[in-house]
Amino acid sequence: MDTETKGLGTTQTEHLDLARLELESGEVIAPVTLAYETYGKLNPDKSNAVVICHALTGDAHIAGVNAKTGMTGWWDSMVGPGKAFDTDHYFVICSNVIGGCQGSTGPLSPNPATREPYGLDFPIITIGDMVAAQAKLVEHLGIERLLSVAGGSMGGMQALSWAVKFPKHVNSIIAIATTAKHSPQQIAFNEVGRQAILSDPHFNDGKYYGGKLPERGLATARMVGHITYMSDESMAEKFGRRFREATSGQKFAADFEVAGYLQYKGDNFVKRFDANSYLYITRAVDLFDLAGDQELPAALTPSRRAPFLVLAFKSDWLYPSYQSRELVRGCKLAGVDVTYCEINSTYGHDAFLLEVAEETHLIRHFLRKVSSGITAKV
Amino acid sequence: MDTETKGLGTTQTEHLDLARLELESGEVIAPVTLAYETYGKLNPDKSNAVVICHALTGDAHIAGVNAKTGMTGWWDSMVGPGKAFDTDHYFVICSNVIGGCQGSTGPLSPNPATREPYGLDFPIITIGDMVAAQAKLVEHLGIERLLSVAGGSMGGMQALSWAVKFPKHVNSIIAIATTAKHSPQQIAFNEVGRQAILSDPHFNDGKYYGGKLPERGLATARMVGHITYMSDESMAEKFGRRFREATSGQKFAADFEVAGYLQYKGDNFVKRFDANSYLYITRAVDLFDLAGDQELPAALTPSRRAPFLVLAFKSDWLYPSYQSRELVRGCKLAGVDVTYCEINSTYGHDAFLLEVAEETHLIRHFLRKVSSGITAKV
Repeated sequence: MDTETKGLGTTQTEHLDLARLELESGEVIAPVTLAYETYGKLNPDKSNAVVICHALTGDAHIAGVNAKTGMTGWWDSMVGPGKAFDTDHYFVICSNVIGGCQGSTGPLSPNPATREPYGLDFPIITIGDMVAAQAKLVEHLGIERLLSVAGGSMGGMQALSWAVKFPKHVNSIIAIATTAKHSPQQIAFNEVGRQAILSDPHFNDGKYYGGKLPERGLATARMVGHITYMSDESMAEKFGRRFREATSGQKFAADFEVAGYLQYKGDNFVKRFDANSYLYITRAVDLFDLAGDQELPAALTPSRRAPFLVLAFKSDWLYPSYQSRELVRGCKLAGVDVTYCEINSTYGHDAFLLEVAEETHLIRHFLRKVSSGITAKV
Repeated sequence: MDTETKGLGTTQTEHLDLARLELESGEVIAPVTLAYETYGKLNPDKSNAVVICHALTGDAHIAGVNAKTGMTGWWDSMVGPGKAFDTDHYFVICSNVIGGCQGSTGPLSPNPATREPYGLDFPIITIGDMVAAQAKLVEHLGIERLLSVAGGSMGGMQALSWAVKFPKHVNSIIAIATTAKHSPQQIAFNEVGRQAILSDPHFNDGKYYGGKLPERGLATARMVGHITYMSDESMAEKFGRRFREATSGQKFAADFEVAGYLQYKGDNFVKRFDANSYLYITRAVDLFDLAGDQELPAALTPSRRAPFLVLAFKSDWLYPSYQSRELVRGCKLAGVDVTYCEINSTYGHDAFLLEVAEETHLIRHFLRKVSSGITAKV
């Protein structure tokens, strides 16, 4: 009998201050703040903690209603009592990535050397650096070993990075709609977004804080992103070739519904996201190559005791399922106990946020299996 | 025994001046110039003429070496003695579309009312308008009925538009890597390109001639375009995740090979193409809906005596093969004699320019069949 699902109520964003974080490049950020939220209760033997990692433009507020902003979390459908990540059983942790702009240290944070925002003086960060910061948070919470690390898209890359960087600290991995390395096409889409930002007249070499923001460039970047998050089919279902009322008399006003939607998404995005963060985070994603100079199975071998759940979506052409299958092949050759499912969805890459029923079924079962394995060992 | 292929030698761009052209919108452009080239010889009964329509940013110079520019034509591999469009047998005509910027009247042409370039005062044009202009050229050349109209991508839309608008003047249609109507995803990619141009600080409401050009916006538009012309696979084969030497010390310099390639393509494009033309032509493509308020079979019924050759490419995700299959279904229901082939290629949409051997085989055979039918009737 399943627990009836109910909401998490209000949630609080908390902050952890670290003296310093050494990056994979050897550079150091000091000090570092991490914004994070937690849900559910850590059990006495601290064996029920799950880190969920957010995607490109997400934040620490994954579920419930944030007390300060009144906003519902970005994966509220999946995290809460009786949900996929059942907070009656698991202690869920989510933090804003470093390089981000929603409470964790990033390019808009003050540079102690100048007391001005870092801007482009912020060092290049990697997915591994994001994960290293999360590991400090997990340590701060007194957790030795995570039940699972989960995430979709860039969140999935972080989950995979946890497995490779901290194999002794993870019991399982849930990698959704993601890849073990970014492909040239994926890099290319991000590059267009970055070029749009860099060539915005207000970009000013990243020193735009307090002045006019590079809004048009960032909005264009987001529009490109949104196209890649949807499928041809989901766009056709949602918009067809319908026209909307032109909001301006301009000759090339965005009067197809799809164009208006993208423009709306782009214009809204600039209100909540920092253009420099977009540069740094997309760059981290493009640099992502889990195995690096190794072969993938060799890179995964140290974490072979942690079972993997790998999920892909049929219509996701941004992170096509062949990339998940390559990951699964790598897992198998490394001796990882891997479960793979390609979910039949028309939502494109967005499916990882939307295919709640299928994901809930698979993730709930997977977490129960992993939990019971731990209990059995204890 | 096939004729050995040889080049066409030097070619000339010619110009036809028309007093006026009435557009589908009811607006009139007056006067109108059409830049065009012809190859091969029109036979005495004028039954061997083939119109080839160019894609988004193409021009009238399809084959041979242009006497003035020294440039080789954009489909030289397919047009010439012994080639797919064999100029020993066929008289090939190609004109720059109206709205274009390579010799035909478009937004950079002088507006007789102001003696300044039209800019955004140029009227919105459609694929049907492009074809109406071509029909005037064909009439001027004294040709009553074309052996075939052929084209890839936007050229294919023009070929289809010929069938529907001028069914009595076409004996056959060759539609390659194209669609009977633009999808929301296709519109969305163009919309991003247009927004990049419109938000360029030098765009100045289209009145940039003689001043600084909206080069960054146009380059960004072209970068988006290039991603959609290639496949994930062809990008991976061409670039992998290789880095190139950074050409600047800039933090977000395009140092992945794929990024450098796109930037190079974008930067080169702005030297040869007008941003306003890009707005008008992409808009025409987005408005394209062959059947309009009719069902596709009904729209195609008047041209049911003209055989169609429809070609799609497996890795083309910009004009995916399902769109060609919808066209083929429409043809069949209309009673059109349609031949369809999905060519196995990894080149993506660019395949229509690159899969010369397969296309040559299919087109040569198709044109021979159509020609012999005409000869038989005569």
